Amino acid sequence: MSDQPLTFEDFPPGRRFALGPKTVTSEEIIEFAREFDPQPMHLDEQAGRASILGGLAASGWHTSAMLMRMMVDSYLLRSLSEGAPGIDLMEWRKPVIAGDTLSGHSTVLETRPMRSRPGIGIIRLRHELENQRGELVCVSENAIMFRMRQSVEASA
Amino acid sequence: MSDQPLTFEDFPPGRRFALGPKTVTSEEIIEFAREFDPQPMHLDEQAGRASILGGLAASGWHTSAMLMRMMVDSYLLRSLSEGAPGIDLMEWRKPVIAGDTLSGHSTVLETRPMRSRPGIGIIRLRHELENQRGELVCVSENAIMFRMRQSVEASA
Repeated sequence: MSDQPLTFEDFPPGRRFALGPKTVTSEEIIEFAREFDPQPMHLDEQAGRASILGGLAASGWHTSAMLMRMMVDSYLLRSLSEGAPGIDLMEWRKPVIAGDTLSGHSTVLETRPMRSRPGIGIIRLRHELENQRGELVCVSENAIMFRMRQSVEASA
Repeated sequence: MSDQPLTFEDFPPGRRFALGPKTVTSEEIIEFAREFDPQPMHLDEQAGRASILGGLAASGWHTSAMLMRMMVDSYLLRSLSEGAPGIDLMEWRKPVIAGDTLSGHSTVLETRPMRSRPGIGIIRLRHELENQRGELVCVSENAIMFRMRQSVEASA
């Protein structure tokens, strides 16, 4: 049974999935910023220290993308995910500075079958990432669609 | 005056800023997905076509990061932005497929001075991106902090 992919039924409210750890390097921060968020505090150590962020800081969008990778590695890639329609909440609570190590968890908030797509259910999750000092740096909530076990068995 | 950076006062409700255009290549989609969202429909043309997305599709987080780059190029880099605390809304309405060209605009929704940080104001913006067929692919809203002109003049 253990090699069966996760379905809707495997995400009861309250279940938690560990995320990370992931250490963020200055090279990664600069590479992401060059392509997607070329503001000085994300590109340059000096400019970062001079800003309210206090150091070479990851773009919030980079932190969000790293969160996504942690979700993929933790549970999405071994699940029958059908994707997500968006994000309900994304808070960048503290700067993520070069050298920081991020970890955290996703927690299932609520679940419901989709009326419009039989055999698919929606799981609402809350994601939290902390740095190595235990400070919350990122909080996010979103809904992800997963296939139900019955639909997998029906098509097997 | 035209080379002065944009401040809080330059973002009255209703003002619009053009975003893009930006054409998304399959190489960019795969490169982003390899690092941040390695799910089959974002990595492989065949897998994308077999999914509900209908083709090699950008990760939603990739679309969000491209939106950020368009915001930087359109107005953030020539402004006195003090960053954003997060995202209030992010909807991925339609898949972004390799070869699609995205464009759109940011519209100022509302503005208010920050009580906790004199000289800084908060601008709430709504961002919309369409593909080359005029279909809305991404809608987002967030608040960005900007310095006020008075605070710039006071420190000059």
